[in-house]
Amino acid sequence: MSILVVGSVAYDTVETPAGRAERVLGGSASFFSVAASFFAPVRLVGVVGHDFGETQLSAFQGRPIDLSGLERMEGKTFHWQGKYSHDLNHRETVCTDLNVFEFFQPKIPASYRGSEFVFLGNIDPVLQRQVLGQVDRPKLVGCDTMNFWIHGKPAELKETLKQVDILLVNDTEAKDLSGEWNVVKAAQVICGMGPKTLIVKKGEHGVLAFHEGEFFSAPAFPLEHVVDPTGAGDTFGGGFIGYLAGAEKVDAASLRKAVVMGSTLASFCCEGFSLDRLVTLTRPEIDARFARFQELTRF
Amino acid sequence: MSILVVGSVAYDTVETPAGRAERVLGGSASFFSVAASFFAPVRLVGVVGHDFGETQLSAFQGRPIDLSGLERMEGKTFHWQGKYSHDLNHRETVCTDLNVFEFFQPKIPASYRGSEFVFLGNIDPVLQRQVLGQVDRPKLVGCDTMNFWIHGKPAELKETLKQVDILLVNDTEAKDLSGEWNVVKAAQVICGMGPKTLIVKKGEHGVLAFHEGEFFSAPAFPLEHVVDPTGAGDTFGGGFIGYLAGAEKVDAASLRKAVVMGSTLASFCCEGFSLDRLVTLTRPEIDARFARFQELTRF
Repeated sequence: MSILVVGSVAYDTVETPAGRAERVLGGSASFFSVAASFFAPVRLVGVVGHDFGETQLSAFQGRPIDLSGLERMEGKTFHWQGKYSHDLNHRETVCTDLNVFEFFQPKIPASYRGSEFVFLGNIDPVLQRQVLGQVDRPKLVGCDTMNFWIHGKPAELKETLKQVDILLVNDTEAKDLSGEWNVVKAAQVICGMGPKTLIVKKGEHGVLAFHEGEFFSAPAFPLEHVVDPTGAGDTFGGGFIGYLAGAEKVDAASLRKAVVMGSTLASFCCEGFSLDRLVTLTRPEIDARFARFQELTRF
Repeated sequence: MSILVVGSVAYDTVETPAGRAERVLGGSASFFSVAASFFAPVRLVGVVGHDFGETQLSAFQGRPIDLSGLERMEGKTFHWQGKYSHDLNHRETVCTDLNVFEFFQPKIPASYRGSEFVFLGNIDPVLQRQVLGQVDRPKLVGCDTMNFWIHGKPAELKETLKQVDILLVNDTEAKDLSGEWNVVKAAQVICGMGPKTLIVKKGEHGVLAFHEGEFFSAPAFPLEHVVDPTGAGDTFGGGFIGYLAGAEKVDAASLRKAVVMGSTLASFCCEGFSLDRLVTLTRPEIDARFARFQELTRF
């Protein structure tokens, strides 16, 4: 089943202990799409400026990623610059130039409207709802958000969440959204806002999923060489939603496997700058690492 | 098989969002012993002052815990006072009165010398080695330490580690001891110092174990009501070493189950102040929660 994803397509400039990458492909929709495309066809909705070239598009080519919803606008592409601490545990945003992304109004092509899976990347909750207003009733709606919207547009976000099946956030966002620091209570509160499933991304500490009153915990894959964690959360989202879209059905069992698949893809993402590792990735490599998650957790 | 444990027996005064407990039983050897006693006989080595009464001893009574190595010295018992942040993620030490613990020289009773398992609680690495010098060759030596010794007596600690089979530390200690912030590299470095197995305790993020080149990851049990995390790490150690001492053999499979058993006991510890929850705990309750760890991680 096909996945519609709306989010950012950007240039990233990133500095990590492993080196520096200048104006490379980034953005939530980019990482998400390439990760999800291993499992299901993807339909991307985003915006780039006139400075976005063929080289950047090449990451999407040769994959089942439909770019007819990637708008080109006069102006410059969204540019984010960040720098990581020596242990990769902290990152500092050096600059955020929203550029054309500031004026982004998602327009859903007619050919996208029947998408069974919709993933609302981290954008204004008002725009997220506008996306849902332009599609037929999807089978599943996934959603990401951030503290900027949790604190800045709480009422709008809560309105959007009523239409969301699965919310993906990090641990701080889960606490801020729920007003509860305890993750069990936070999950209960958030699942009272609309989502039936909550996915809490904890970076190097893995993922905690909450579905129908049950928790599922998956570790992050212990990596010896981390090059750049940028996009790992979005790549998790792509692997997670992608796996579900490719699965026979969405139930407790497939949700658990989807969490592990998301974690598998995210681990590869960290092995290179930008989408460098994702674009060389093969299905056998993915399946081999997925199997290593079994080894990592069985007892 | 019996376990000799050396460590602190203390009075704790603790303040958490759930309340306050004044001069209650604490200390690494206390938590360790009670947790381990569910699985194997324990022989405790520690020191208390003249102010340590029968009420405190009651936590050990009715259990296979031999107290003939619990020395009584003139002076006051070790007292630690701490206060936790509203989300329990940080704790501040209000005061540490070492009292008789400052002069602790572990004396191993003759009846303890044949102990098959020895656990060296977090004390001066010189004293840890003196303990090993007073016992016959044990089947397994477990060891805890802390940054105070990692930075204060690095050479002595490394000498001790040569005789250790399993090192239990938290993530910061693993980084500081190895000089590596990456956990994969840290594990390799530490396992080059002597231990064959490294257990990295990550609090609410669970445990990462490294043994024969393989990682095993176990989550912490998601608790809705956390009363007091004090002693959870030592309780983990007791459940972990206790399970191994009660198991048929120590191998990769039993080490994994031991990690989960340690995590199981640690989760109960957090449900009360001091050893309040541990002393009411039953084996069926332990087994039921151990089974819930299966549910929490299977996919």
